[in-house]
Amino acid sequence: MNLCVIGTLAYDSIETPFGRADDALGGSATYIATSASYFTQPIGVVGIVGDDFSSDALEFLRSRGVDTSGVVVKEGGKTFRWSGRYHHDLNQRDTLDTQLNVLLDFDPVIPEALRDAEFVCLGNFDPTLQGKVLDQMRNPKFIVCDTMNFWIEGALEEVKKVLARVDCLIINDSEARLLSNHPNLIRSARMIMEMGPHVLIIKKGEHGALLFIGNEMFSAPAYPLEELYDPTGAGDTFAGGFIGYLARVGAVTETTLRRAVIYGSAMASFCVQQFSLDAMKNLSNQEIQQRADAFRTIAQFDLDEVEIGDATA
Amino acid sequence: MNLCVIGTLAYDSIETPFGRADDALGGSATYIATSASYFTQPIGVVGIVGDDFSSDALEFLRSRGVDTSGVVVKEGGKTFRWSGRYHHDLNQRDTLDTQLNVLLDFDPVIPEALRDAEFVCLGNFDPTLQGKVLDQMRNPKFIVCDTMNFWIEGALEEVKKVLARVDCLIINDSEARLLSNHPNLIRSARMIMEMGPHVLIIKKGEHGALLFIGNEMFSAPAYPLEELYDPTGAGDTFAGGFIGYLARVGAVTETTLRRAVIYGSAMASFCVQQFSLDAMKNLSNQEIQQRADAFRTIAQFDLDEVEIGDATA
Repeated sequence: MNLCVIGTLAYDSIETPFGRADDALGGSATYIATSASYFTQPIGVVGIVGDDFSSDALEFLRSRGVDTSGVVVKEGGKTFRWSGRYHHDLNQRDTLDTQLNVLLDFDPVIPEALRDAEFVCLGNFDPTLQGKVLDQMRNPKFIVCDTMNFWIEGALEEVKKVLARVDCLIINDSEARLLSNHPNLIRSARMIMEMGPHVLIIKKGEHGALLFIGNEMFSAPAYPLEELYDPTGAGDTFAGGFIGYLARVGAVTETTLRRAVIYGSAMASFCVQQFSLDAMKNLSNQEIQQRADAFRTIAQFDLDEVEIGDATA
Repeated sequence: MNLCVIGTLAYDSIETPFGRADDALGGSATYIATSASYFTQPIGVVGIVGDDFSSDALEFLRSRGVDTSGVVVKEGGKTFRWSGRYHHDLNQRDTLDTQLNVLLDFDPVIPEALRDAEFVCLGNFDPTLQGKVLDQMRNPKFIVCDTMNFWIEGALEEVKKVLARVDCLIINDSEARLLSNHPNLIRSARMIMEMGPHVLIIKKGEHGALLFIGNEMFSAPAYPLEELYDPTGAGDTFAGGFIGYLARVGAVTETTLRRAVIYGSAMASFCVQQFSLDAMKNLSNQEIQQRADAFRTIAQFDLDEVEIGDATA
């Protein structure tokens, strides 16, 4: 197995200034696996749902080439549900309701066939359980991990234990500042990398993403979108495109990591253009490649043949 | 005359978490002209000061090759003074005191020798006066303009009259949202460009800058600084490097505009590393070129030879 994704499968109810979606398919593992499926095969997902979880949803994942045998369906249980409302600028949201339901029983057991996965993506869930997942992996080549303010504030020591064991952390800028307790983002990055990960990605929404590899930094622009419909899952979609591309090429180098950030950003830019996973259901290779190429145009400049002399000289 | 800069010359009193500076040399014209002086000559400055303005300050500008004959020294007047305190994260500041002093009498008269300047940089001041400046210019090739929330909120119609007459507006992201009354920055940019400028730069501080030229967009990263001492004047320093580079090369094309944004960003990154203008007093050509080259490393990625096929195909 090439890529193992561990996270939530959920139903989201979302209100944005542009409309609403009730009980839409969501969850970190769903977004990550769907996004990654455009780059690599095979992918296995580990998670838990209730028996209210639609067979269509699992069938959709399988249609994307995702092995769902690691998804536990709990008899009599209810699937994790999240409900939120986005503000006018879509940069802020209020959680209206969180029903953990079957997540309270989540104790991830990695199926035998997934334990040899070279690439591992830990969605955002309890860091103690993230650690338990890592205990079961035999020889991972590259482990990516997500977390959030809830765990940083409530289980910092457990978060740090996980960070010491992963290759790459993906968080947003406010989470980075919280985790490092430092207002300067560059300093934050250095402090977080001292906790363990040798690769760090700080997502900044409309401002793009920063990739730190050792002492090197790469700044990826955001794709310019005049219309965003639903930011839900954008971060997970980024992570899926990122690790999906790395799993595809197999090699983790500074060059492939930079490319992976661009592909992750491209996938996230599709994600926010429709509700739920809708935008990612039928992308073509050409669409993805064109979107990635657009990042090149946005970021491109040259200084060749330029010579700056002090004009007073 | 190559470049004409119109704006304030001031004394700033600044408190940051790292220290304080009292009556430090400041003002938009000072920062713009000093920054531009590393790229182009001759530069003329138009502004007004009181007779308390140090001759050392004017001498410093002249030592940078800046013609100060357009600076009116008002007998018995006091120089514009601003006092502010930055918050811990340096992204926010409180104005503690503003003494307009001689600015109340500012009625810019462009000296004869400056009226033929090809490149014009209007610092942030009363849009009615910005218009009066433009009335006096004979055949400007490229006019750059700055403004701020104070004028957008208090004199929107006058701001719009100026925008209809300039080539390029440089503002920050919150000002762009205020001017367009739209939360989406990309949409904001389109709306602002419909007001007149065919080039628009939106500065985003630690997130870099966006350049819009017609339907094209360029996203420049920020230089990663772990230590910022004083953000005062960073925007003006950006503007100075930007227009200074353009005036140097003479041609305003998509290629030179992108480069100009990088040189502006490089100059701004020096500015914030020390108080007041201190960091910009003795830069070498090599330092500036190396800083600009660093932006290339930060923004660089390639997608050559990459082919993304749908992994399920």
